[in-house]
Amino acid sequence: MLSDIEIANAATLQPIRDVAASTLGIDEEHLVPYGHYKAKVDLSYLAGLADRPLGKLVLVTALSPTPPGEGKTTTTVGLTDALHGLGHRTVACLREPSMGPVFGMKGGAAGGGYSQVVPMTDINLHFTGDFAAIAAANNLLAALIDNHVHHGNELDIDVRSVTWKRVLDTNDRALRQVAVAMGGHANGFPREDGFDIVVASELMAIFCLTESWADLKRRIGDIVIGYTRDTKPVTARELGADGAMSVLLRDALAPNLVQTLEGAPAFVHGGPFANIAHGCSSVSATRAGLRLADIVVTEAGFGADLGAEKFVDIKCRKSGLRPDVAVVVATVRALKYHGGVALPDLGTEDLGAVEAGMVNLRRHLANIRNVYGIPCVVAVNRFPTDTDAEIAKVVELVAAEGVSAFPATHFAEGGVGARDLANGVLTMLEQPSPYTFSFTYDDADPLTEKVEAIATRLYGAGLVTWDARARRRLERIERDGYGDLPVCVAKTQYSFSTDPTSLGAPSGHELHVREVRLSAGAGFVVVVCGDMMTMPGLPRDPSAARIDLADDGTILGLS
Amino acid sequence: MLSDIEIANAATLQPIRDVAASTLGIDEEHLVPYGHYKAKVDLSYLAGLADRPLGKLVLVTALSPTPPGEGKTTTTVGLTDALHGLGHRTVACLREPSMGPVFGMKGGAAGGGYSQVVPMTDINLHFTGDFAAIAAANNLLAALIDNHVHHGNELDIDVRSVTWKRVLDTNDRALRQVAVAMGGHANGFPREDGFDIVVASELMAIFCLTESWADLKRRIGDIVIGYTRDTKPVTARELGADGAMSVLLRDALAPNLVQTLEGAPAFVHGGPFANIAHGCSSVSATRAGLRLADIVVTEAGFGADLGAEKFVDIKCRKSGLRPDVAVVVATVRALKYHGGVALPDLGTEDLGAVEAGMVNLRRHLANIRNVYGIPCVVAVNRFPTDTDAEIAKVVELVAAEGVSAFPATHFAEGGVGARDLANGVLTMLEQPSPYTFSFTYDDADPLTEKVEAIATRLYGAGLVTWDARARRRLERIERDGYGDLPVCVAKTQYSFSTDPTSLGAPSGHELHVREVRLSAGAGFVVVVCGDMMTMPGLPRDPSAARIDLADDGTILGLS
Repeated sequence: MLSDIEIANAATLQPIRDVAASTLGIDEEHLVPYGHYKAKVDLSYLAGLADRPLGKLVLVTALSPTPPGEGKTTTTVGLTDALHGLGHRTVACLREPSMGPVFGMKGGAAGGGYSQVVPMTDINLHFTGDFAAIAAANNLLAALIDNHVHHGNELDIDVRSVTWKRVLDTNDRALRQVAVAMGGHANGFPREDGFDIVVASELMAIFCLTESWADLKRRIGDIVIGYTRDTKPVTARELGADGAMSVLLRDALAPNLVQTLEGAPAFVHGGPFANIAHGCSSVSATRAGLRLADIVVTEAGFGADLGAEKFVDIKCRKSGLRPDVAVVVATVRALKYHGGVALPDLGTEDLGAVEAGMVNLRRHLANIRNVYGIPCVVAVNRFPTDTDAEIAKVVELVAAEGVSAFPATHFAEGGVGARDLANGVLTMLEQPSPYTFSFTYDDADPLTEKVEAIATRLYGAGLVTWDARARRRLERIERDGYGDLPVCVAKTQYSFSTDPTSLGAPSGHELHVREVRLSAGAGFVVVVCGDMMTMPGLPRDPSAARIDLADDGTILGLS
Repeated sequence: MLSDIEIANAATLQPIRDVAASTLGIDEEHLVPYGHYKAKVDLSYLAGLADRPLGKLVLVTALSPTPPGEGKTTTTVGLTDALHGLGHRTVACLREPSMGPVFGMKGGAAGGGYSQVVPMTDINLHFTGDFAAIAAANNLLAALIDNHVHHGNELDIDVRSVTWKRVLDTNDRALRQVAVAMGGHANGFPREDGFDIVVASELMAIFCLTESWADLKRRIGDIVIGYTRDTKPVTARELGADGAMSVLLRDALAPNLVQTLEGAPAFVHGGPFANIAHGCSSVSATRAGLRLADIVVTEAGFGADLGAEKFVDIKCRKSGLRPDVAVVVATVRALKYHGGVALPDLGTEDLGAVEAGMVNLRRHLANIRNVYGIPCVVAVNRFPTDTDAEIAKVVELVAAEGVSAFPATHFAEGGVGARDLANGVLTMLEQPSPYTFSFTYDDADPLTEKVEAIATRLYGAGLVTWDARARRRLERIERDGYGDLPVCVAKTQYSFSTDPTSLGAPSGHELHVREVRLSAGAGFVVVVCGDMMTMPGLPRDPSAARIDLADDGTILGLS
């Protein structure tokens, strides 16, 4: 089979204005083109569609993944193509890839095989400049903080308590911990600082949770950048940064429209981490899709314990959006992994391990139906090494849970490979839901109880323990009036617990909260359990060394 | 009079595809649109024009400026509009503004008054993403350096000798000097480092001196990032970074087309500093303009001792381009400043000071004609406080040098205000030049002699002295085989000497070289004389605090 970039480079793309017109009925005048195959859809035009009825919302999530991932983006694209091919007005809503991993190890994130969004190289690199805009706004605020301190520190900011970090869209471990303002008087007051990757920034989360310029500016103004010497929160508004930062994000806020390899429309907009942030593409894109199409297929990061939980408890809670069906991506490989098979051996048939690993998927299905209250189907994303017997076993095991599972081969075959899945989703969309959508906890619950609700109801944990400093920080956050915010748990995606090697469905374990961070602008409290990497490093042999530009401008080696 | 942004926001712009077609004969298919009013012109299309005859090249430069500047960009735009209005196929070639100063004190750099390029807010902010692309490529190389050291340091890079800095397009003094890779083993080997503003980067200079993807990659590969423990230069090619960095700059390399307020075409592309780099917009844009238009009007940074010298000795030497006429922008204010009047008093008529300050302009005119061998005219850019008698005095003094001076009021009146200037330029273009274009020094001269030639022939200096460390660095650079490169002098723009308060035309002074830096990819050796700021700071009351976004998306307060 050809590589992703070979498939993408060989594709014949339609001009995006034709895609917009033919698939979503958007006139060219409402598009802001970025080249011929990418466009932003004018925000004012979208605001004018407020009276349109909303389409159906399909959330693609997954069981706890293996390190290489189970193909959520690919399934989102394949399902969109299948629905599109069946004549349904459908749009995919995806996250924008971060450039850091493109040059590191993981590669891009525009789908794969015959289920990709294109132009693939553009989407994986600068795209329409959204991440650069977020970085510029983020770093302007950082500069204004140090500048304020340098010029007299009227607000009495305690430089030891500044939590606002600088960001780059580069994997660069050397920037994780730095000392800034060295070199004497002219360069300001030295302090410890650090850089995060753009996707880990609060500003990325804000960007993905807002739909208007006015709300954007309000949220940016609410950002707490640190504390005064007498521990009062200092906001971006007090630094006079909210207007200028909003100006920098003005154009970026409009959703980006591209196409799949099969010509279906796709919004690719925003891309927050699914640990320190909520891991979903922008609300503005999702809402635009629901107004323009009959069906929106969107994904949430990591497994359903992280991405889907935040989709429900943060994105839906904040926006009023409600998913109609969840598609849970499962693979034979991941089930065997949870059933005790080591990563290198996942290519060998093992029906016993598939059955043993089912405990993981089973808990996710229970959470989605019984806690979030969303009807669901399972997509069995087929890999070349899967045997027919293994696939049949998964379908049988899922059926025993009262859920339909559909093997899907969209990676190798495009939309036609997800046609059964699409029909399964359509059937679910036509039926009334037997469940009642609900959040995992209420706004009014104390922050500790919110964490306990997630830990016990979703993770199967026995208790939540707190680092003393994290507990004090939580108390300060409640005292400062942020107690009604939802929580955003940052933990490993590989396990229901905080131990990435604890596979399957661990129970009765301890969820230890190591750190608490306030994202007042985004509107949530991050609860860090276990190690969390907010600035990746490059591997010994980074992809950058293989990525090349031919003399004729062809991009080579991107994956 | 209205503010720049009020004038720009009130303008009716033509779609850029119409401007491209009607003014330069470029079909829409060769444009890559960025919205409706900005476009890149396809590099492959431009390469296909190689057989076209070249138009005439007009270089806009200036006398030694006052701190607020004398209006070179404004004059470039006004002259372009005047030539355009007279029916000549003319294009302006300008540098892209840096976002840092937009949020600091200086403001944007898209011209001013009724001589602006538009869309003004776009051009002053993210524009087409070129600076973000340069920053991403620059910072990828930085990450690859520290990553190489972290993973075993096969090349034996001496971290104390790494000269490649990280960059941001933000004014941020706290990043001038930093310590990176703090925090223990997982974050790499700690070292001292610093951030420059994007426009001060070698990569910006490379970007502006190349015209093809192949040459771009070669130059990037040639970058020397630092030295091994046994003092051998280490290149970006040895780190395997050249391909990936070129990929990041692939699209950015195509020149950006916009329009003036009067609908003339303008390429706004690249923007290197005029001290640590050569201070001119891209060769690719200049060459494109010369192939597409009959006249190209372009500017070089700072005064003619810096910008024009580098235009000649770096940009022309490397590219084969040759200016046909130089327009030297002079102001009554600057002449009085050089004649001894303090900045706050420049609004008061003082014919004696105008005459006294003429020494500065006189030397620039002599340099341009007798050293560079370029015919010239003077544009007297009129300010509201200038009196008729002062303007007449300047014209008279310049005439005494055998040069024509043309008062110009394009700031207040647009192209019609520069019509006399345009006619003067046209007259010069029709006449054979009485001068022979030449460089200030030869490639084969030793580096020290190159600096001496600039110092004595152009600056009027009596001698050049060297810091011992700078001298040793120069010797190493020659020993490593870079002795045939041109030099790029970084000194104050306010004086022919290195003392910004030494106005007029100082003579016999000492040019002290404090530091020497190799820009092997750009292809020059930077000779630092005096202090040089490569990362500006924000002022006490930054523009950021006044820049705002209205609820309807209107950008306010940008200047």
